[in-house]
Amino acid sequence: MNRKQLVEQIRLKKSYLCVGLDTDLARIPKHLLSHPDPVYEFNRQIIDATREHCIAYKINTAFYEALGLKGWEAMQKTVDYIPDTHFKIADAKRGDIGNTSSQYARAFFETLRFDAITLAPYMGEDSIRPFLEYQDKWAIILGLTSNSGAKDFELLETGKGYLYEEVLRKTSRWGTTENTMFVIGATRPEYFEKIRQLTPDHFYLVPGIGTQGGSLATISQKAMNKDIGLLVNVSRDIIYDSEKEDFAQKAKASAIAYHRELSGYL
Amino acid sequence: MNRKQLVEQIRLKKSYLCVGLDTDLARIPKHLLSHPDPVYEFNRQIIDATREHCIAYKINTAFYEALGLKGWEAMQKTVDYIPDTHFKIADAKRGDIGNTSSQYARAFFETLRFDAITLAPYMGEDSIRPFLEYQDKWAIILGLTSNSGAKDFELLETGKGYLYEEVLRKTSRWGTTENTMFVIGATRPEYFEKIRQLTPDHFYLVPGIGTQGGSLATISQKAMNKDIGLLVNVSRDIIYDSEKEDFAQKAKASAIAYHRELSGYL
Repeated sequence: MNRKQLVEQIRLKKSYLCVGLDTDLARIPKHLLSHPDPVYEFNRQIIDATREHCIAYKINTAFYEALGLKGWEAMQKTVDYIPDTHFKIADAKRGDIGNTSSQYARAFFETLRFDAITLAPYMGEDSIRPFLEYQDKWAIILGLTSNSGAKDFELLETGKGYLYEEVLRKTSRWGTTENTMFVIGATRPEYFEKIRQLTPDHFYLVPGIGTQGGSLATISQKAMNKDIGLLVNVSRDIIYDSEKEDFAQKAKASAIAYHRELSGYL
Repeated sequence: MNRKQLVEQIRLKKSYLCVGLDTDLARIPKHLLSHPDPVYEFNRQIIDATREHCIAYKINTAFYEALGLKGWEAMQKTVDYIPDTHFKIADAKRGDIGNTSSQYARAFFETLRFDAITLAPYMGEDSIRPFLEYQDKWAIILGLTSNSGAKDFELLETGKGYLYEEVLRKTSRWGTTENTMFVIGATRPEYFEKIRQLTPDHFYLVPGIGTQGGSLATISQKAMNKDIGLLVNVSRDIIYDSEKEDFAQKAKASAIAYHRELSGYL
């Protein structure tokens, strides 16, 4: 999916909500566990319930890898089930030397049909470059993340500003606003202004809303750009709203509430 | 495998060679392609041919993920096939917020029976911590890598030295020399002395020998410690020494040559 198509979906639905499929066997409703593929069945019902209200889905690969082969299979079936009207993100935090990153790009852009993958920038240009060589596919590079550990290195002073600033500055030159986004956590609003100065036209994938405590209003008011430029992710607060048979209805109700709030900021 | 057992294997075999299984369908001998699981069959023969000469195997997860389900299955079979006398490394470069990193730890330490996993430090302490909670398992954190992109961020000046120095300094305090190693590329010998000053007792996983051009002699002379403290990885230069039916014999010959050179430095 290219930028024009993504922006069209956002305008059409008046939503920039991304639903995060952090699907954990320990947290899905018990009645699904007798299903041959409980993870996929859960995802399928969540997707059916939320698709009208979101424009993207984010699959957190860790939860699938933890289940081994069965998990990888559930991930593959889930990506295939997500409608092509929706932007498909592999939240995989990959990144390695050039010839290895090429294999990861193949894994997520060819073998699995994702539109985008999250990437860790530590290893530098050759670790990111292979992902930028695909037409209409996206590298979503970690900028300033939502977790407590962000202070350890991302907020390290480098003489050129914080490390995350240098990451934004440098990596934004490797690609374009048509193939690069950044992960910007919603939990650190005091940095939004500086971040938009450095990357005014990029899209951000924004985690940290809901369970992690970030504010939807603040990120929307402070970091939106002319093309909206935000994909706000909510995972646990939508998909685990109920642990009973009504989980999909509850997820839908939660997605509707987020949709309503987001559309108010547009 | 704990540190004592690892050091015993090194002393016993007089080797600190790690064989990297970067197994790529496009590069393995053509006659294997008719096998039901060519990747696993290739690995099995490579392991049989090299096990006497190395003390560790490193599986580069990207090459397996690129093949989807079949690849994940081949990876699982390969880990199970590696003898328990050998240290099993998932070269996976993972790292995410705490609750997600816990899932990666489960994936590689429980679902798959690896002893160690490589980790990207960018997201800080909570992204590393879950891997340190396992008995006799290891976090191998990216320090100064062997690729050209290392100059972009790892060699960024921070006022506390280069970023990679601050990574070594800080992350080495989160774990111990019994559960933490670092990736130190062989291609940047001018930094070895400083690196050993910062982390005198840690083990390093050393890529960059062979195809990437690092020197075995230099890293061995400059970075060995009292417990050896080095796992030197060679991938392509051993496993792809021949593209014909004699590939396993050629891999064995190449592993013997590395073994002989390494034992000379002990």
